[in-house]
Amino acid sequence: MLLQMLAAVTRRSRIAVVQKPMPRLHPGWALVRVRLAGICNTDIEILRGYHDFQGTLGHEFVGEVVRVAGETGPGCTCSPASVKDKNWVGRRVVGEINIACAGLSSRGGGVGRLCSYCRRGIPTHCKRRRVLGIIGHDGAFAEYLTLPIVNLHVVHHGIPDSAAVFTEPLAAACEILEQVDISAHNEACVLGDGKLAQLIARVLRASGVRVVMIGKHANKLAFAHLAGIATIRSFSRAARRANAFTLVVEATGSPSGLMMAQRITAPRGTLVLKSTFHGAAPVETWPIVVKELTVIGSRCGPFPAALALLRSGRVDPRPLISRVFELNDAAKAIRYAQKPGVMKVLLR
Amino acid sequence: MLLQMLAAVTRRSRIAVVQKPMPRLHPGWALVRVRLAGICNTDIEILRGYHDFQGTLGHEFVGEVVRVAGETGPGCTCSPASVKDKNWVGRRVVGEINIACAGLSSRGGGVGRLCSYCRRGIPTHCKRRRVLGIIGHDGAFAEYLTLPIVNLHVVHHGIPDSAAVFTEPLAAACEILEQVDISAHNEACVLGDGKLAQLIARVLRASGVRVVMIGKHANKLAFAHLAGIATIRSFSRAARRANAFTLVVEATGSPSGLMMAQRITAPRGTLVLKSTFHGAAPVETWPIVVKELTVIGSRCGPFPAALALLRSGRVDPRPLISRVFELNDAAKAIRYAQKPGVMKVLLR
Repeated sequence: MLLQMLAAVTRRSRIAVVQKPMPRLHPGWALVRVRLAGICNTDIEILRGYHDFQGTLGHEFVGEVVRVAGETGPGCTCSPASVKDKNWVGRRVVGEINIACAGLSSRGGGVGRLCSYCRRGIPTHCKRRRVLGIIGHDGAFAEYLTLPIVNLHVVHHGIPDSAAVFTEPLAAACEILEQVDISAHNEACVLGDGKLAQLIARVLRASGVRVVMIGKHANKLAFAHLAGIATIRSFSRAARRANAFTLVVEATGSPSGLMMAQRITAPRGTLVLKSTFHGAAPVETWPIVVKELTVIGSRCGPFPAALALLRSGRVDPRPLISRVFELNDAAKAIRYAQKPGVMKVLLR
Repeated sequence: MLLQMLAAVTRRSRIAVVQKPMPRLHPGWALVRVRLAGICNTDIEILRGYHDFQGTLGHEFVGEVVRVAGETGPGCTCSPASVKDKNWVGRRVVGEINIACAGLSSRGGGVGRLCSYCRRGIPTHCKRRRVLGIIGHDGAFAEYLTLPIVNLHVVHHGIPDSAAVFTEPLAAACEILEQVDISAHNEACVLGDGKLAQLIARVLRASGVRVVMIGKHANKLAFAHLAGIATIRSFSRAARRANAFTLVVEATGSPSGLMMAQRITAPRGTLVLKSTFHGAAPVETWPIVVKELTVIGSRCGPFPAALALLRSGRVDPRPLISRVFELNDAAKAIRYAQKPGVMKVLLR
């Protein structure tokens, strides 16, 4: 049995690949060998100080279960029977990143009560939650990770690793369909042309609306164009389309996006916010009031919906892969991911 | 027939009471003698440059119809028959402040097509709209004003002028009940203790939820306390109630309110924005995303709902009146309205 593994850990805003002890396996949890992991803008924000996370980075992955432990704690929805039923060992899986009461109950040894959010069925807002590679739990830029079995989803054999590794951000894009009645809109605008914006545009398009992507980078907009999505380059041209869209998704990852998003959203329209970034930006909020906009914050989403899109082929994220690095080269990979024009960078 | 009237007009960020010609009456419009008008924070913001309005200020009023003109323009929903049917002359009325396609069609002489918002039944967002005392149409701080007959609502004889003059801001408070499923909440927080915040708190309370008002001014919070509304003074004490409320209404009228509002709204909670003010404020928007808040901009509301609340006595705004001035003293009244602790100031 292995005692040590490689992991890319944050150290004072830098990343270093080190030998670490293998993670301890709690009852109701699985040990997963990471096959492929994706670098997200949140990882880069964390290295800039977001969430003040110290540990192994990474929350987008596809892996293989190598070991599970039966559960003991109360409040855990995965009984020893379900652990066996699923025959998890050897299965290819993706994993939800929020570790909520149900998962923590076994780990902490008997914290059995569910918090009010877990009771309401929204464990992504669990009061005690830890988040894979973001808050209080080591992440996926490593040879192995652990997650509660309740967080895992089996990946159908028809979905290759290079597509399955997009499940987490694709689920975040699918969250919009949970929050907005998409059938009320003929057209949607995605503001931004980065990795998440590209996935959002594809998910909205797959749901049947016309999609217009507004971005600043010709080489990134080209990805959307190839996927059959209309594009507008230059924010000044976009600014002339005041009140043009009943549904706008702000996914620029930059503070300036919100002002533009308010401008192009129609009165009584819906504006979905997807960008998280560090720091306050000067924002005029009166357009939200005067235009009676509905602004919806949107974060993690449903893995089954994302896996279904990947399996059906209605969304194929693989053209967005810019390059695959070895885990050993994680520092180089993260530098590369920040270069202009680079889309998804993976670690193997 | 009178040819001149008194009016309080804006002149380079100041207000002056002058003699003006009587307003011209268009087909489908009514000439209304103003009985009582209210000073709103928006009037003060206008004097600071908001909307760059030049003309007679004022949009809160109760008055009496002195003359109506039959309509001629297409697209107007008030036929000459309805003008007569209602027997408008002599009726005590309040008036909706947004003058939309239906009203403008007769005024402009034959602009018959309704804009897309008027066709959708949301004339408060009419593309061509003028707004009483705010955008392109002289307001209520005058002896007389004009409005399309479709904008008028008869005031029941059981409602005194001193209550009816609150109809417009009370309708704005009622708009929240149109936008939010209030039955999904046991408790609501109103952030702010000013005039609009006070009305919002009363409307929410009348709809059956427990209401907590958070404010900075002991003398203003006392009004809420007298109306049976729980209060918290000091924002620092309120800040300790992170995630405490599933429904928060931001009505501070100040940029700092939004940050606090985001803080105290629970994950997946609803945050209604009521404040309009001039200028950009630095705002961290990531809590909206991470907590998946729904932020709803809320502006003008339904007059019938407000009149029903006044008639039933379930909301009595009259204790909020600080002082009544003569129209001649409008400049003095507006200065007085900005003094600490002053609530609603009226012009007679």
